[in-house]
Amino acid sequence: MALKTTRKENYPEWYQSVVAEADMAEISASPGCMVIKPWGYGIWENIQKFLDEKIKDTGHENCYFPMFIPLSFFQKEADHVEGFAKEMAVVTHSRLSSVDGKLVPDAPLEEPLIVRPTSEAIIADSFSKWIQSYRDLPILINQWANVVRWEMRPRMFLRTREFLWQEGHTAHSTTEEAEEETLKMLEVYRQTSEDALAMPVLTGRKPEFDKFPGAVDTYCIESMMQDGKSLQAGTSHYLGQTFAKSANITFVNKNNENEYAYTTSWGVSTRLIGGVIMSHADDEGMIVPPRIAPYQIVILPVIRKPEEAEEVMNYITQFQNEIKQQTAFGEKIRIKIDNRDKKSADKFWEWTRKGAPILCEIGPRDVQGNKVMVKERLKFGTEEGKQILDKDEFAHAVGEKIEKIQTEMFAKAKARLENNINTSIKTNADFVKYFEAPSTWIEENGKGVGFVRGKWSGDEKSDELLKEMKINIRCIPFDQSGTEGECLLTGKKGATIDVIYGRSY
Amino acid sequence: MALKTTRKENYPEWYQSVVAEADMAEISASPGCMVIKPWGYGIWENIQKFLDEKIKDTGHENCYFPMFIPLSFFQKEADHVEGFAKEMAVVTHSRLSSVDGKLVPDAPLEEPLIVRPTSEAIIADSFSKWIQSYRDLPILINQWANVVRWEMRPRMFLRTREFLWQEGHTAHSTTEEAEEETLKMLEVYRQTSEDALAMPVLTGRKPEFDKFPGAVDTYCIESMMQDGKSLQAGTSHYLGQTFAKSANITFVNKNNENEYAYTTSWGVSTRLIGGVIMSHADDEGMIVPPRIAPYQIVILPVIRKPEEAEEVMNYITQFQNEIKQQTAFGEKIRIKIDNRDKKSADKFWEWTRKGAPILCEIGPRDVQGNKVMVKERLKFGTEEGKQILDKDEFAHAVGEKIEKIQTEMFAKAKARLENNINTSIKTNADFVKYFEAPSTWIEENGKGVGFVRGKWSGDEKSDELLKEMKINIRCIPFDQSGTEGECLLTGKKGATIDVIYGRSY
Repeated sequence: MALKTTRKENYPEWYQSVVAEADMAEISASPGCMVIKPWGYGIWENIQKFLDEKIKDTGHENCYFPMFIPLSFFQKEADHVEGFAKEMAVVTHSRLSSVDGKLVPDAPLEEPLIVRPTSEAIIADSFSKWIQSYRDLPILINQWANVVRWEMRPRMFLRTREFLWQEGHTAHSTTEEAEEETLKMLEVYRQTSEDALAMPVLTGRKPEFDKFPGAVDTYCIESMMQDGKSLQAGTSHYLGQTFAKSANITFVNKNNENEYAYTTSWGVSTRLIGGVIMSHADDEGMIVPPRIAPYQIVILPVIRKPEEAEEVMNYITQFQNEIKQQTAFGEKIRIKIDNRDKKSADKFWEWTRKGAPILCEIGPRDVQGNKVMVKERLKFGTEEGKQILDKDEFAHAVGEKIEKIQTEMFAKAKARLENNINTSIKTNADFVKYFEAPSTWIEENGKGVGFVRGKWSGDEKSDELLKEMKINIRCIPFDQSGTEGECLLTGKKGATIDVIYGRSY
Repeated sequence: MALKTTRKENYPEWYQSVVAEADMAEISASPGCMVIKPWGYGIWENIQKFLDEKIKDTGHENCYFPMFIPLSFFQKEADHVEGFAKEMAVVTHSRLSSVDGKLVPDAPLEEPLIVRPTSEAIIADSFSKWIQSYRDLPILINQWANVVRWEMRPRMFLRTREFLWQEGHTAHSTTEEAEEETLKMLEVYRQTSEDALAMPVLTGRKPEFDKFPGAVDTYCIESMMQDGKSLQAGTSHYLGQTFAKSANITFVNKNNENEYAYTTSWGVSTRLIGGVIMSHADDEGMIVPPRIAPYQIVILPVIRKPEEAEEVMNYITQFQNEIKQQTAFGEKIRIKIDNRDKKSADKFWEWTRKGAPILCEIGPRDVQGNKVMVKERLKFGTEEGKQILDKDEFAHAVGEKIEKIQTEMFAKAKARLENNINTSIKTNADFVKYFEAPSTWIEENGKGVGFVRGKWSGDEKSDELLKEMKINIRCIPFDQSGTEGECLLTGKKGATIDVIYGRSY
């Protein structure tokens, strides 16, 4: 019973219906913003938990900065604004007053305030007060916060006006240390994406024209969605002394000289959830990787007559206790018994749409035979995906099972990525031809328009040419071959840079 | 080495210096907002963790609603606005444009947006879409979010324009169930305050004129600060059908009739941290209850010669591993080795100001004797607060020690509360006299102007009279004596309601 739109029929519509049918989020009365519902937010909480631990393990501390940034800070950051931050929510008044029974904005502010699109500007201001000597460095902080960018074409999770994210900000006494930090956090993002979200990524550097405004270098993780397009899933910026100079973050170094600090920033957002959907969901709805699933196992009692209830529920309690003895990923297994007063078939479809990794249906016949009907979401519709198993055997191996599903999900997504990086295109002509085809859903083990790994000359006009072709350079990978060839974009000979070309979200 | 202002000298200034010297928060470039620094935010994270678990254990799920609420929603909620929500941040533009090199707000919005002061209005709108039948009820949700109220006299943690909080919102099919929910969450707040923050509270109902606008009943937890004033630390509202009617939240009940739902809301905020400070801090700075301390134990190596370093650090590692075998409050003990390149005396004062519960100083002499110098923050300056102990004995009992400190902190605050509730005032004349004295710091086991528990007539003019006296009715306790007496506020005879009078933050 597929969703009303399948991936093949209409990929963008399919995406929206997964979000809706899995009850992860919905549009809200607040234009361009979404309500993140419990199933979607539960996924975010698990992503947060995984990543927050890694952020702390690498020596960072959480804190919280105001969301309102005085307009004058943006004036200072001319570069900053030029790049991306023009479309922003501006607070101009601090009161609602009633005029003839109608509420109107009142009490205009002396200086308008911007709702943070990102917090470099206001955090740099604090850093300038916190840092005097090299002994105060490094400063390693992070915040979990909401940010606002006035998107004109919002899409659930991928691009909404308000979204949730974390932003790390650090200051260092040497450029080497700051660069090391930037790459360290990129690696943390790679681990989070691959290990928690089962979402394989390519890592690399952005070309000049795609850097974060003010950054010396922007690094990214890029993941391939099921339609072959790339999702930029996280970025880590080495900011050099740009923000230190505009906010006057100086320190006395070991030689007793005044020096500007070297800063970094890095962030991932609720956009990751959009990536999880487009990496794993199928025509039946969402499939959540177990590591970040709010519930890894959902148990559905199948009770047709009231007199069966007690026996079945006792059996389920016993089953649940057995499962609770186990762990997955070194943590307690997250388990839900859905005994709502609804038809079990409806509940089955609800959890299928939500993509809970394992569904267990238990009725009187299972009680008799000490069995459990196990449905694996990832294998929906296959024989293997629906098995009657011995209750105790299943319960004792359930941790392993959960971890195995995670591995399988990653492998599947990894195969898609690897199958769809074309490395054989050597000429501009072939390159143009490759990207003439539209992006469509790529079925399992199939091939479609994905990424091209090939040569780039670094030509100044590249940005323009890319825009014409509606593609981008997703990243410049760290492993460069050093060989020469034709620039796939311009046709120039003698191009030496290996890049990943692709369409993107 | 007391802070530059003591509690006795100037209580409000003392408060500010605790916040500053403990490095918990600071004013920011964003007017009226604060930067919550790692030590303050770490306390908040531990409060969140404790409370979030209780919120989930009582069946609630987290989600996230947009922070921008269309102006028209407030127009609908005339009542709502009348009460408290006039001073609010209003977003009127969605772009910054450069005019003659100067950035100005541009692209005016069709409808201004309000930055949420609280989310009843926008959540009720969602509820109206989610709820059709009694089978959809109850809905039990919560969100952790930032909110904005345009305070004119901001004070760190207690009253800032932007603050962090959680807000629970629920909908039910009967008034009984909704009322039960309201009181259940009040109890969760009492537990959080008393068990996590070691902050004893009184619970009760607010009088009519102090209810949340639109509420049928507002319940609160109230705590006594060291100057005898009350801090409202959390509220839980039974909203009846008020919001259901304005947002049209209806459901088909079991009798197949359309009915408005019954809703509740409840919240606590970063204000709690202000309460923790004024419950526990002393003239040396902050004292953090171990249960919410970012670090429960801080170890300071005391190394005078470089050649001592290795031996001392090895000993400390061993000590740390012993401590890690123990738990406190059923969790891992949070421990920090402070080996920054600073004088150990400076580090000692830093951690004293921050109020880490236990400081351990370890130098070569301790290594020789298998000892550790243990300084208990709560007992600063006393003999008992500074002891040389056997390393292994200390390490093996450290979990108990940490829990004992928590108990002692609660007992101390509880004694202050109980000593300073005056129950013997029976006449208006004595009552007026009691509140003629100014509020000052109440020393341990001392008495000052605190709360009066006594009679109230419920007279309509009470609000006015209270304002004149600059006091409030903090709450109407659940345990009512049922006796008659003179209304302490108005002097009327035959008053039957027992209330708690006091000054407040």
